[in-house]
Amino acid sequence: MAASPSPDRDKKPQSNFDVDYVIHYTVPANETAEAEASFYQLITSLSAGGFATEVRPGRTASSLLVFLKLASVPHIQSQIYRARLQDWLYGVRPDAPAPSSSSSSDGIKPADLARYFDEDEPVTEAERLRLAYLLITRPRNEGGAGVTPGMGQWRFVKAVFPLHDRAFNRRWIADWSRKYFLDEGDIDRIRDRFGERVAFYFAFLQSYFAFLLFPAAFGFAAWLILGPFSWVYAVVNCLWAVVFFEHWKTKEVDLAVQWGVRGVGKIQHPRPQFQFEREAVDPVTGEIIKVFSPYRRLARQLLQVPFAAACVAALGGVIAGCFAIEIFITEVYNGPFKQYLTFLPTVLLTIFNPTLTALLTRLAERLTDFENYETRDAHQASFVQKIFVINFITSYLGIFLTAFVYVPFGKVLVPYLDVFQLTAQRFTAEGKPVPTKSWQINPDRLTKQVIYFTVTAQIISLATEVIVPWAKRKAFKTVEKVQADLAEKKAGGGVEQQPKDQPEEAAFLKRVREEAELEVYDVTIDYREMVVQFGYLSLFSVVWPLTACSFLVNNWVEARSDAVKIAANCLRPIPWRADSIGPWLDALGFLAWLGSLTSAALVFLFRNGAGAVDVAGVERSPWDISGWALLLAILFAEHGYLLVQMVVRGVVSRLDSPGLQKERAVRFSMRKRMLERMGEWEGGVLASEGEPVVCDGAGGEKITREGLEEDARRMSVGGQGMPEQLFWERQRGAMETVQVGRALIAAVANKTKTGKH
Amino acid sequence: MAASPSPDRDKKPQSNFDVDYVIHYTVPANETAEAEASFYQLITSLSAGGFATEVRPGRTASSLLVFLKLASVPHIQSQIYRARLQDWLYGVRPDAPAPSSSSSSDGIKPADLARYFDEDEPVTEAERLRLAYLLITRPRNEGGAGVTPGMGQWRFVKAVFPLHDRAFNRRWIADWSRKYFLDEGDIDRIRDRFGERVAFYFAFLQSYFAFLLFPAAFGFAAWLILGPFSWVYAVVNCLWAVVFFEHWKTKEVDLAVQWGVRGVGKIQHPRPQFQFEREAVDPVTGEIIKVFSPYRRLARQLLQVPFAAACVAALGGVIAGCFAIEIFITEVYNGPFKQYLTFLPTVLLTIFNPTLTALLTRLAERLTDFENYETRDAHQASFVQKIFVINFITSYLGIFLTAFVYVPFGKVLVPYLDVFQLTAQRFTAEGKPVPTKSWQINPDRLTKQVIYFTVTAQIISLATEVIVPWAKRKAFKTVEKVQADLAEKKAGGGVEQQPKDQPEEAAFLKRVREEAELEVYDVTIDYREMVVQFGYLSLFSVVWPLTACSFLVNNWVEARSDAVKIAANCLRPIPWRADSIGPWLDALGFLAWLGSLTSAALVFLFRNGAGAVDVAGVERSPWDISGWALLLAILFAEHGYLLVQMVVRGVVSRLDSPGLQKERAVRFSMRKRMLERMGEWEGGVLASEGEPVVCDGAGGEKITREGLEEDARRMSVGGQGMPEQLFWERQRGAMETVQVGRALIAAVANKTKTGKH
Repeated sequence: MAASPSPDRDKKPQSNFDVDYVIHYTVPANETAEAEASFYQLITSLSAGGFATEVRPGRTASSLLVFLKLASVPHIQSQIYRARLQDWLYGVRPDAPAPSSSSSSDGIKPADLARYFDEDEPVTEAERLRLAYLLITRPRNEGGAGVTPGMGQWRFVKAVFPLHDRAFNRRWIADWSRKYFLDEGDIDRIRDRFGERVAFYFAFLQSYFAFLLFPAAFGFAAWLILGPFSWVYAVVNCLWAVVFFEHWKTKEVDLAVQWGVRGVGKIQHPRPQFQFEREAVDPVTGEIIKVFSPYRRLARQLLQVPFAAACVAALGGVIAGCFAIEIFITEVYNGPFKQYLTFLPTVLLTIFNPTLTALLTRLAERLTDFENYETRDAHQASFVQKIFVINFITSYLGIFLTAFVYVPFGKVLVPYLDVFQLTAQRFTAEGKPVPTKSWQINPDRLTKQVIYFTVTAQIISLATEVIVPWAKRKAFKTVEKVQADLAEKKAGGGVEQQPKDQPEEAAFLKRVREEAELEVYDVTIDYREMVVQFGYLSLFSVVWPLTACSFLVNNWVEARSDAVKIAANCLRPIPWRADSIGPWLDALGFLAWLGSLTSAALVFLFRNGAGAVDVAGVERSPWDISGWALLLAILFAEHGYLLVQMVVRGVVSRLDSPGLQKERAVRFSMRKRMLERMGEWEGGVLASEGEPVVCDGAGGEKITREGLEEDARRMSVGGQGMPEQLFWERQRGAMETVQVGRALIAAVANKTKTGKH
Repeated sequence: MAASPSPDRDKKPQSNFDVDYVIHYTVPANETAEAEASFYQLITSLSAGGFATEVRPGRTASSLLVFLKLASVPHIQSQIYRARLQDWLYGVRPDAPAPSSSSSSDGIKPADLARYFDEDEPVTEAERLRLAYLLITRPRNEGGAGVTPGMGQWRFVKAVFPLHDRAFNRRWIADWSRKYFLDEGDIDRIRDRFGERVAFYFAFLQSYFAFLLFPAAFGFAAWLILGPFSWVYAVVNCLWAVVFFEHWKTKEVDLAVQWGVRGVGKIQHPRPQFQFEREAVDPVTGEIIKVFSPYRRLARQLLQVPFAAACVAALGGVIAGCFAIEIFITEVYNGPFKQYLTFLPTVLLTIFNPTLTALLTRLAERLTDFENYETRDAHQASFVQKIFVINFITSYLGIFLTAFVYVPFGKVLVPYLDVFQLTAQRFTAEGKPVPTKSWQINPDRLTKQVIYFTVTAQIISLATEVIVPWAKRKAFKTVEKVQADLAEKKAGGGVEQQPKDQPEEAAFLKRVREEAELEVYDVTIDYREMVVQFGYLSLFSVVWPLTACSFLVNNWVEARSDAVKIAANCLRPIPWRADSIGPWLDALGFLAWLGSLTSAALVFLFRNGAGAVDVAGVERSPWDISGWALLLAILFAEHGYLLVQMVVRGVVSRLDSPGLQKERAVRFSMRKRMLERMGEWEGGVLASEGEPVVCDGAGGEKITREGLEEDARRMSVGGQGMPEQLFWERQRGAMETVQVGRALIAAVANKTKTGKH
């Protein structure tokens, strides 16, 4: 695939002017001198790194846009070859890359490089952009420009981003909105444009979507026939979760192999924010490396425990509190203002939950920074762990409370809600007891809650993701325009006149200025959403078997809305590579496993309507009655799950996949080539050594004169020879061994005959 | 290390006459013709494979001994290079092997090859012998001799074995019997002689022994202070098991890396017994391969389920039956012959158990053969799985029955033992009821049983392993000698006269004839023993905390007795490679995990003397009382275990190990070398391209005449140029970009100033 959209070149606004990257450079009014010095540094560094540069004014007067493109073809060619060689040395590619053969390539543009590289392995746009970004950010002593956006000397560099390929984006969105299923080609195209990291997300989404078809169909049938809390559904659902998880694990490896990125995690990108304690000599490489004590890091990592506790306490407190208030108001309280007070917990939750979540996410970021990882991947993995904890609590705790506290222990706990009654009593001036109604456990509560989280919340989140940023941008723009108009009026016009753009690039620059304002795309957020969704399905769908149907619809839209988000609402992502969905895989596995426990517990507790516990005995504490049976059910479910997982893993691992097959083929051909070369060498050795040792059957008779002479010689030497020398000279050549052996065997035959006679 | 024991050459009986392998060839009296034909084939094949051959009569008249050595140095050199190259191509070695530089090496012996190969990487005896064995067995079209012992055409080849190095063995045993701890050097020496597979066993044994010190000391303290069924001991013991397991997993990888065999499992040796259904073209390599349908194999593998069931039923039935009889006789029965009848269950168990075990092992072998694996490793892994099931039942079921059936349910179940009473009644002629005594659960039973299995049984097995084969061999020899004497007397002497050995080789041949009678060493049996032992420690040591002390002593002796076994009681093993302890690792993990469950259950059931259950309530069924608490304890213990395992795994994986460090260093130096070579290439490219783009600060002023001319040219082209061309030509060179940027920044500065004024 040619990197430059040549067929669209005539549609002028869609061309990217061969720009590889744009640097959004801000000039704060109070630091113009520093900004100027840094700007000089920036341009010279980039130029030394092999970039052609152009500068244009930004959207506001205090920002500049620096346009970069890789200047020389041989330079980028050698960069690509070097990167591919590194991949090979790190074991990412099975075979060594072929160096490009074209040496006189001065006339071609870097963007058309694909044609000049190996036909079998074209340079994708993603690869070129990734290498260009690495060239921009890599330290100068490693041949890069050493520009680290936002840090230290480069604090005026607000962003470094590639430009959207409008033509491609338009086709992409149009294409996807017209098809039900995405195929491998669709994902491959994403990969070629946005890199493997983004492509993995869409591949996961697509795989998950395809797999959802089964639980959606089965769930619908179960909903019609079996009803909620059916153990059949629970078992099938858990099985499905295992199969999906294991399938994805294999699929992930397969994709990584197909995309040539397997094991790419081994090539670590250093984190520029990493702060070292001291420099030391690496015992392995002998180079000077920056060291941060792993024990100090471990000590800092231990802060994750209080962090998790804080999350549980803060979020759990809010959720449990609101839950208690809600139950009191809706199900116990019967006094005045009930219709308004009903909304109180929702209001409280809407205020506190996002605030707390944002606060805790911020804390998680700080904590991860504090843990001071050397590489981006380690940093990211640690951060993902923390936000998974936060999301686990905010997403599932409410349902857990309903299912495992409210229903079984409601009778015991609700009387304690008198606290609220007393509080309410204070506020009602008369001081008389607040009227309450007789309380009954409400078994529909759980179902309603699950439906809320799996339908309503999904729709809300979808809307938030697409519509809100768009609306925000529109509103922001309008406000800014009004402000600018006002300012112009005030200043009387003329003073803040921006330098006019050249007519042929005006439209292009306008578009770039708009793009520069977009947010950075974070694939983590999209993964989080899908993983949390998978959690609902795995943990609670036994409550409401239609869950998967809702998710199926949602995810069809999700894939398209994420595409729109990337294409229109975000900066074009830097096409990083990845060889998996990273730490989210563990989260998936954890949720699938936990699902076996919760499903068993839910079926056990609720299968007889409002909860077996409540039906069976009225006076006894619920745990006394069938606690051991519940635990046994959970124990069995869990171990059944683990057993099935082992079996599925075994079966899945034996299946062949196109990616692995391809890799094996490449490895095989490489081995064959090498061994053939080796064979020639070996052949040479053997040839130089004289004829190879070959015996023909008639060889035995040939030993006549020479043999006798040799025998004589041997005899004469005999006395002085070492025993081993004598030993090996007793039978000279294979044929003599055969003869002696024959004689010995004949003796056996003779003996047998004599024995028989 | 020179492969041949040159310092011992003067002690004649200890020299191996440079023999690499000995083929034990049998000549059945009724097949002498076939044996002769096959013998001819054998010698010619071996000769074509590059071996020098000598034949001598065997111990009996109907057997021959064929001595082999690799004939030519360049041949074995090229074999070694080829094997090492293959290792590199399969990713076993991080760097390509250096070909040996000596081309004129006709004078040296193959055994002295080490000196002529790369100094850093000498050829060990194990490597040479392994390659020689591969040369013997590899198919002829792949350059080997194609001799597959015992199969088809080669059914007269009874064994192919290397000769023991007596001098080394003597030093080895003497050395080990004098030291408390084995160090890495000891293990490395084993590896150099017997290959990695055997070395891994001793490394595991040594690691396990060192790790046993802690539970032995702690167990002793716990025995003194805490007593049995202490939850503190249980927790510490489980933690220890996790740490040991995880440590060994890392250690295993480390050793594999140090020994250069990591990933050696990828180089699979085809199993000659494999039977293919059809030949097909490999989609990957394009070669014709032998195919056996994986679905058929899966179907056959499913037979493992009935097999396991049969094991449980047969062995379980015998054990449970004997258990019941024992309880009836010792604790209920009080009639005549009690003192004799007490031995009945032991007698029954001693008769039935080994018979059944042997039968089932045979069945397991058959089943594994039937599963028809393509490679030896897969075959071995499947077989190990099956014998683990058998051993699990024979080793642990008795204790499980005592702990979890006899004690908690004894009161309920013992009355059913009346069956025996009725049976006994039949046999007592009078037909009156057999006298019984009132029955009480015997809480010491469990402890006695554990002590039996962890002390008595260990000593018995140790004795069986070393003394029995030796005694058997002695007895067998005596019998044979007597028979031979008798036969000689009968025949009147002279008829069966064996050809006389040459005096200088007589002692050597005598020794070889003795060795040829030894059994094949099977490391699986030794692993099994250790894994079963680990199981006692992990599952039941909470019953008797001194368990580890007993094992510590036992294992010190075990290592030495295994050494003696290899050195004196078995054929010298073929030095296969391995990169782990193989399927036993899973067994260890399983036992460690199961230990968390049983320990929790044992502590819970027995912590108040005879069992909490029995003490708490007399009339109620034990499960009613605290079943849920028991289950909760187990559940907590298990998940605690899994959590701890995760943490330990995380910590252990972060520790660096010498092996991994070494590997990283090798990889690094290889990468560096390659990238430097690449750097030269790149340098060449850049140089050919003209000067690199460098800007100095003064560059901006330099653009004078040429710059202006160029500007003019640009203007004139302007109209016709593509927009992107124009875009990139607006600022020519980095310095112009800097100038334009400076102007823009100055505007910001000006504006700020004007704003301030």
